Amino acid sequence: MKKILFATTALVATAGVASAEVALTGSAEMGVFGGNYADTQFFTDLDVTFTMTGEADNGLTFGATIDLDEATDTPDFEDPSVQGGENMFISYGGMTLTMGDTDGALDKLVPEMALAGGSLADDETVHAGFQHGDGDALGITGLDGLGDGQIARLDYAYDAFTFSLSAEQVADGADVSGMGDTVWGIAGAWSGTVSTVDLTVGLGYQAVDDYAATTGLGVVAGLAGGFSAGIDYSNTDIDGVSDDVNHWGLGLGYEMNALAVGFNWGQFDYGNDYKDSGYGLAAAYDLGGGLSAKFGFGHSDGDSFSDEVNTYSLGLAMSF
Amino acid sequence: MKKILFATTALVATAGVASAEVALTGSAEMGVFGGNYADTQFFTDLDVTFTMTGEADNGLTFGATIDLDEATDTPDFEDPSVQGGENMFISYGGMTLTMGDTDGALDKLVPEMALAGGSLADDETVHAGFQHGDGDALGITGLDGLGDGQIARLDYAYDAFTFSLSAEQVADGADVSGMGDTVWGIAGAWSGTVSTVDLTVGLGYQAVDDYAATTGLGVVAGLAGGFSAGIDYSNTDIDGVSDDVNHWGLGLGYEMNALAVGFNWGQFDYGNDYKDSGYGLAAAYDLGGGLSAKFGFGHSDGDSFSDEVNTYSLGLAMSF
Amino acid sequence: MKKILFATTALVATAGVASAEVALTGSAEMGVFGGNYADTQFFTDLDVTFTMTGEADNGLTFGATIDLDEATDTPDFEDPSVQGGENMFISYGGMTLTMGDTDGALDKLVPEMALAGGSLADDETVHAGFQHGDGDALGITGLDGLGDGQIARLDYAYDAFTFSLSAEQVADGADVSGMGDTVWGIAGAWSGTVSTVDLTVGLGYQAVDDYAATTGLGVVAGLAGGFSAGIDYSNTDIDGVSDDVNHWGLGLGYEMNALAVGFNWGQFDYGNDYKDSGYGLAAAYDLGGGLSAKFGFGHSDGDSFSDEVNTYSLGLAMSF
Repeated sequence: MKKILFATTALVATAGVASAEVALTGSAEMGVFGGNYADTQFFTDLDVTFTMTGEADNGLTFGATIDLDEATDTPDFEDPSVQGGENMFISYGGMTLTMGDTDGALDKLVPEMALAGGSLADDETVHAGFQHGDGDALGITGLDGLGDGQIARLDYAYDAFTFSLSAEQVADGADVSGMGDTVWGIAGAWSGTVSTVDLTVGLGYQAVDDYAATTGLGVVAGLAGGFSAGIDYSNTDIDGVSDDVNHWGLGLGYEMNALAVGFNWGQFDYGNDYKDSGYGLAAAYDLGGGLSAKFGFGHSDGDSFSDEVNTYSLGLAMSF
Repeated sequence: MKKILFATTALVATAGVASAEVALTGSAEMGVFGGNYADTQFFTDLDVTFTMTGEADNGLTFGATIDLDEATDTPDFEDPSVQGGENMFISYGGMTLTMGDTDGALDKLVPEMALAGGSLADDETVHAGFQHGDGDALGITGLDGLGDGQIARLDYAYDAFTFSLSAEQVADGADVSGMGDTVWGIAGAWSGTVSTVDLTVGLGYQAVDDYAATTGLGVVAGLAGGFSAGIDYSNTDIDGVSDDVNHWGLGLGYEMNALAVGFNWGQFDYGNDYKDSGYGLAAAYDLGGGLSAKFGFGHSDGDSFSDEVNTYSLGLAMSF
Repeated sequence: MKKILFATTALVATAGVASAEVALTGSAEMGVFGGNYADTQFFTDLDVTFTMTGEADNGLTFGATIDLDEATDTPDFEDPSVQGGENMFISYGGMTLTMGDTDGALDKLVPEMALAGGSLADDETVHAGFQHGDGDALGITGLDGLGDGQIARLDYAYDAFTFSLSAEQVADGADVSGMGDTVWGIAGAWSGTVSTVDLTVGLGYQAVDDYAATTGLGVVAGLAGGFSAGIDYSNTDIDGVSDDVNHWGLGLGYEMNALAVGFNWGQFDYGNDYKDSGYGLAAAYDLGGGLSAKFGFGHSDGDSFSDEVNTYSLGLAMSF
């Protein structure tokens, strides 16, 4: 639930000045988590988000965001040459430029397969078969974060279409031997209704010269009766490695009244019969007013694991 | 003084949604402090507290808190497996479950002896004779914080009685040889009026199997004319140590109009005639609007000290 | 643009209690920066400021401030014996006492030469010829920060005059051999109109016994047609060094409607023909509502540099 801390411009600003504002929102989670590699233990988490928005005289809107947890992380958010959790944007009409802690084009527009529900420990999205599209999985898919995470992305929305173009400097603008200087990304998405199905299709491409290129595709369909289903595919071509990395994933969701349940499965195929896969389950029950009960389960298995890994979490999530 | 940053739900939420909110409060202190082991030097301190509260559809209330100074400390508050300053609760009727940065049952319900006033440097509560009930004194009394500080406590209030049950995992759920896996605590308190005396009595017990057990008792009486008086006692039995640690303490308070003065004395007896004791004095004068002048003095002496230690602080405290 | 998060005292406090408040303001910058020693790279920066204010019953006002970026820096702002970004003040009539992260007397009252505009990377004030008056330049001018940065300053405003007296302990109150125990500062300023010129004159002196003494003078004149001009001079006498350090600087500013442009030049003369100098240019165009476009350029040259250094930055600055 978003709240705006009202700018009492009447008190401190001259009349007629457009009001910029700082909004505070928060979240907290309490419960237990564990798995076959960890004892069941207490889970406590919390965050506060500062959301700043304004509007220039010409109608251009702008804003910036940082989370309290990001503010205390390294790299330091106050260092302008790196991304330390901060992001900011300007927007005019359907065009928006965002910089800092934001998704690359592929991650922004290609749907992921966690379609409904959610959990305290994100069990359903941290298993070995989940494709984030942001470079988390072995650092070779998505390519976001290959540099210092300082991404610039231009979005353009037109009718049911959205297009995105992104750039992340690999080494603060310098050229790195065998890699290049910039991660470029381009992606497009379409959302609309086909018969009674709410369809979203996203296609993205992200690449660093001389290093790697990823192509990602995702389709999600909102069906009747609260059901949803999706499928994604990605191909990553790494320079100097003979086999491409291919990923297939699928997701199912169900939402009815206060209940939301999501299931997803995915597999990374590194070639030569070397594969990792996993599935995740998330269930949430909305108690209203920002409170919900959540359960998550994740399962990972494959050639990178000597034994399968199971994780789970259970508890309450609060949003303020 | 508590302030609520209003949730302008009218702007951003659909009508009828219960409003969760984030409140910001602050404090600051300026002055000087010193003692016989330190030159007199400037004292500057400040904190900001984020207090989040909400109410679910069924009337269950919930909330979470973090301080800005805790947010920047280690361990990291965003790590769900440890406590880094965050806490959160759910409450229904007289029952409340709190997790994270909160007191164990003994510390929650057994009164401490700093009855009135307060100081910038907490001189009156950091001397060698003060019993905090939270494990600060030599790490053997109170037992809070023996693990990662992530405490779960269930409180139940019924009429004039309050009961608390708490648990803190020693090592994220694992069993530690010679210690056990959990610090358990149980406590009860009663508050009421006997003749013209406002009485609060608290009794608590906290223990880790195979390591130590503490029993604490505290009584505070609010007398006529602004006077208050209290006494506390604790016994700590450490496994493998022949002598128990015993603590006696007493406190006096006086509050009249804007003035509040507190005095306390206490002694830890480690057996074999090995003792530490100390006393503290705190005085505060309320200037209104959140501003007060404060003075504190603490004195420590005993067998752990080659020489006695005196500390003092003087200055202004602000609350916003 | 400053906004006050309203204290809804009506909800949580008893009637008649003066309302202390916590205000949140923010800023963000996005763009690019670079120079002849660095590739052009993305620039992202953000900050949030907590401003707390209150008023005591007797009319004395008080307050405190911290920035989110300072809160996450070391030294830790919650350590009362050092300055970690926090400051607080009390004020009554024309008299104000400020402690913590604040300017010494010289820096407070002697004008600097960045008269108009501003840039993302502060190019116009970080070049080798700029006199900050706060001890940044080689640590020998201004002397602020010679200790732990915990400054106490008393300001007194009377008619068009302001006087300041400041103290910073070199080593938490201890005497340091060859240096002394305290940085003392004293300064005075006058602001008024002479014919049609808005004039500000500031003179300050800051010294540590047995170490160094700085005298600074600055004059700024606001002229007709949006023009302003200024000149500053400082002399620093370092014990045991035969030559004084002398600095000359000048500044020019122009502001017309939404445009503001500033230029400054300065030179440090360390004696024996050893000199460093630099100039800076800053331009800002106000787009309204808190948004402005900014450009900065800085140039450093001199005997401390094997080659000249140029830096620039370009982008958008937002204030919320």
